Amino acid sequence: MFIELDLQSETPIYAQLIDQLIEGIASGELKPGDPLPSVRRLAEDLGINLHTVNKSYNLLKQEGFLQVHRKKGVIVQPDGMPGVTEAFEEKLRQQLRSLAAAAAVRGMSEEAFTQESRSVYRNAITNRGGEQR
Amino acid sequence: MFIELDLQSETPIYAQLIDQLIEGIASGELKPGDPLPSVRRLAEDLGINLHTVNKSYNLLKQEGFLQVHRKKGVIVQPDGMPGVTEAFEEKLRQQLRSLAAAAAVRGMSEEAFTQESRSVYRNAITNRGGEQR
Repeated sequence: MFIELDLQSETPIYAQLIDQLIEGIASGELKPGDPLPSVRRLAEDLGINLHTVNKSYNLLKQEGFLQVHRKKGVIVQPDGMPGVTEAFEEKLRQQLRSLAAAAAVRGMSEEAFTQESRSVYRNAITNRGGEQR
Repeated sequence: MFIELDLQSETPIYAQLIDQLIEGIASGELKPGDPLPSVRRLAEDLGINLHTVNKSYNLLKQEGFLQVHRKKGVIVQPDGMPGVTEAFEEKLRQQLRSLAAAAAVRGMSEEAFTQESRSVYRNAITNRGGEQR
């Protein structure tokens, strides 16, 4: 899986890594049971700190997206992904609110914002089936 | 205008402040030409650092959401808000992508995600007309 980090971004690296791993799961590029690189290996490949990768993996394990497998190491959750929790809904609504407000102030219509959301969702799951991004 | 900051959040305070001011403009609670509190006053009211408020105000001025008025101090842009720039579209798409991927992985349908986006947009502009939040 191709991971691209933006070291200039205001989004912390560990959060970017989490986002991209979840995007990989959403797109089907990462499938349930797939092994992830070891913390050390991924940190080396990306040129980032071990602790950063560790933080991302740990948060994803806590939330149930990853699992530690006795032999394979860290793998994508094979026993069903976490569902839509109240905490997730709250976070989703809060982040959508910021985006929607900025879009509205800039003159983007409700319809344009809604269609953009739909199109982004479709693209996010488009590669399910295993096509490379 | 009521501003509520979450000091525990992973979103930096200056970014939360920016979000809330833009939400205030979107909702109509803050209208073009309305004066904002001085940096010092707002920092005191919110119990945060002067530099944090300064950073938020400066970024909002740079983007064209605020203006410095000779007499009134910092005011909400009276001469038309910035439009939908390429940079904004890119940022919007990127942030929607993270949200959509997380929603999809958790089993939220395209329809549910799209409707949530629409409903949040509507709520964001609901108070246009001046109702208090």
